[in-house]
Amino acid sequence: MAMPSTDPPVRYEDVAAAAEALAGVAVRTPLLESPALNERAGGRLFLKAEPLQITGSFKFRGAYNHISRLDQDTRAAGVIAYSSGNHAQGVAAAAYYCDTPALIVMPEDAPAVKQQGTAAWGAEIVTYDRNGSEPREAIAARLAEERGLHTVRPYDDRLIMAGQGTVGLEIVQQLAALELKPDRVLVPCGGGGLTAGVATAVRHHHADTSVHTVEPIGFDDTARSLAHDERQGVAGGSDSFCDALLAPEPGQLTFRVNRSLCADGLAVTDAEVAVAMAAAFAHLKVVAEPGGAVALAAALAGKVDLGGVTVIVLSGGNVDPAQFAGIL
Amino acid sequence: MAMPSTDPPVRYEDVAAAAEALAGVAVRTPLLESPALNERAGGRLFLKAEPLQITGSFKFRGAYNHISRLDQDTRAAGVIAYSSGNHAQGVAAAAYYCDTPALIVMPEDAPAVKQQGTAAWGAEIVTYDRNGSEPREAIAARLAEERGLHTVRPYDDRLIMAGQGTVGLEIVQQLAALELKPDRVLVPCGGGGLTAGVATAVRHHHADTSVHTVEPIGFDDTARSLAHDERQGVAGGSDSFCDALLAPEPGQLTFRVNRSLCADGLAVTDAEVAVAMAAAFAHLKVVAEPGGAVALAAALAGKVDLGGVTVIVLSGGNVDPAQFAGIL
Repeated sequence: MAMPSTDPPVRYEDVAAAAEALAGVAVRTPLLESPALNERAGGRLFLKAEPLQITGSFKFRGAYNHISRLDQDTRAAGVIAYSSGNHAQGVAAAAYYCDTPALIVMPEDAPAVKQQGTAAWGAEIVTYDRNGSEPREAIAARLAEERGLHTVRPYDDRLIMAGQGTVGLEIVQQLAALELKPDRVLVPCGGGGLTAGVATAVRHHHADTSVHTVEPIGFDDTARSLAHDERQGVAGGSDSFCDALLAPEPGQLTFRVNRSLCADGLAVTDAEVAVAMAAAFAHLKVVAEPGGAVALAAALAGKVDLGGVTVIVLSGGNVDPAQFAGIL
Repeated sequence: MAMPSTDPPVRYEDVAAAAEALAGVAVRTPLLESPALNERAGGRLFLKAEPLQITGSFKFRGAYNHISRLDQDTRAAGVIAYSSGNHAQGVAAAAYYCDTPALIVMPEDAPAVKQQGTAAWGAEIVTYDRNGSEPREAIAARLAEERGLHTVRPYDDRLIMAGQGTVGLEIVQQLAALELKPDRVLVPCGGGGLTAGVATAVRHHHADTSVHTVEPIGFDDTARSLAHDERQGVAGGSDSFCDALLAPEPGQLTFRVNRSLCADGLAVTDAEVAVAMAAAFAHLKVVAEPGGAVALAAALAGKVDLGGVTVIVLSGGNVDPAQFAGIL
C-alpha cells in the first residue's frame, strides 16, 4: 500500500513537548507492581494507573495538550468533541482549565458516570443514538459549523497522540528509576491514539521493546489491520461491555504510526476483562473500567509471553458503581 | 501530668532518615485532587492515596523502616507482630523484602483479604479470639519468647512512627511542587503512629498547619485523650466496621507526640464512612477500606472547616470485595 505521506503523524519531540505542557497539570500516575500479580503472571508486571488521572482516564492528557495550544480567539469560540465518555470528560476538563466553552456529542447509552463526569466540568452535552443513521462525526461536524466551534478529534490528531504519549514517556522514566527497561508494553486500543503515543515514546528510548494493542474480541479491528497491514473495520454484530473501545476502525493517522511501531495485536473476552477488573481491585486498589482493564486481562489470560518486564496500561476507571459491584 | 521523659519519641530527622531507607522501595503515592470533591467540600482537598502503597496501606512504610535496620542475627531469627491486618501485611511484606521469617498474630475475624494478603507474603499466621481472655500483646510476647523472635510493634516505636511519617513528608513535598502549603491535615487514627509521624513531618515544615486525628465514633479514644490531655481508653460496648481502627487506647509514645502536635480529634459514623468510600470510588478511582476512609468521611460530613487547603490521608484499601460491592 502506498503511504499517503512520509511525514510521521507524531514525533518523539511532540511527546516531549506535551510532557512540558502537562507538567504540574496532569497527574504523574504511579507505576504499580504487585507481587501477587507477578506470581500469577510468572514475570514482573508494572501497571500504569491512568484511572488516577484527572477525569479518570488518560484522555485528559491529549485533550489538554491540544486545547491549551489553541489561539485565544479559537478558545473563546469554544470546542466540540464526540466521544463515548472518556474523551468527553478529558475535553470537558481541559476546556475548563483553559477557560473554553465545550460541547460534547455522546451516545445516549454512554455510562451514567461518564455523562455526569462530563457535565460536572461545565460542558454542554448533546446525545445521539448509537444505532441511528447519522454518524457521530457528521453530527459533530454539523454542530461545529453551526456554532463556529473547533473540533477536538478523539485520536486522529498529532497533539492528541502526543499528549497520550506522555503515558509512555512516564513509563520509561519510572522504569529507569528502578534501573529497568520494558520488554513489552500492552496498551488498551480503541482508535489507537494512546497506542500511537505510547509506542512513539517507548520505542524512541527502547527500540527493542514490543508494543501490543489489546482490544475486545469482535472489536479487534486494529489487531486485524496490523495482521493485514491495512486498515480494516470491525466485523459488526459484535458486542462487548468495553464501552470505551468500540471504535469502528483504526484511525488513519494512528494506524500509520502503529503499523510501523507495533507488534501483533491481542484480543480478550468480556469474562477475561472482568477477572482483570477484580484483580486490579484486589491487588492494586485501583478502580479499572472494562475498557481500561483489557491489557491486564490479556496478561492474566496468558495471551502473550510475560518473561522479563511487562508494562500494562490501565487506561481508565470510569465505571458505574452497580456494574462494578456486580463484577466484584 | 508529669512527662515520663522530655525526649521526643520521634524527631523530624528520624522521618528524613526513613524517607532515605524507603526510597525506591515504597511507592511514592500520588496526592490526588478532584474538582467534584472540592465542590462538595467548598475548599481544596488533596487526597494522599496510601491504598496504592505496597500491601494496600501505609503500614509497609513503618514496618520496612524498622525491619530493614535490624542486625543480621535478629533478622535471621525472625520477627513477630500482632495486627488486625494492615500492620500484619506491612510486616509480612517488609520481612519478605528483608529475607526475614515473619510470624503474625491476627484476630480470627480479620477480613479475609487481610489474612490472604499476609499469607501471600510467606508469613506464618496465628489467629486469636478478639474477645478471648489473653490480650494479643500477651500472645505475641509468649510466642516471641518461645521462638526467639523480635517484636515489631504496630505504633509505639520510633522507627515505625518515623516510617509512617514519610507520608507527611511526601505531602509537604507534593504540595510544595504546586506552590501550596496545607492549612490542615486529617489523619485516620488507630494507635496513633501514622498521626505522630505525619504531624512530626508536616509541622516541622509548617508550624501553623493543624493536624486532626479522625476515628470511628465509639473508638475515638485519641480524640477524648487529646481533649483531656491524658490517655483514655475506648468506652467499650461500641462497634464499627472500621476494623483497622479498633485500638483500645492511644499508644504511650504516639500520644506523647500527638498531644503536643495535634489539634482536636474528629469522629465519624459508619454511614459517613460508607459515603466517603463511594466518593473515593467515584471521584478518585481509589479503593478505600472503611478505616482508610474516615478522614475523607470527616471532611465530607463537614466535621471541620475546609477553607484553603486540606490534606486527607486515605490510609488503606484492604476491603473484602463483597463488603465493597455492598457499599457501592
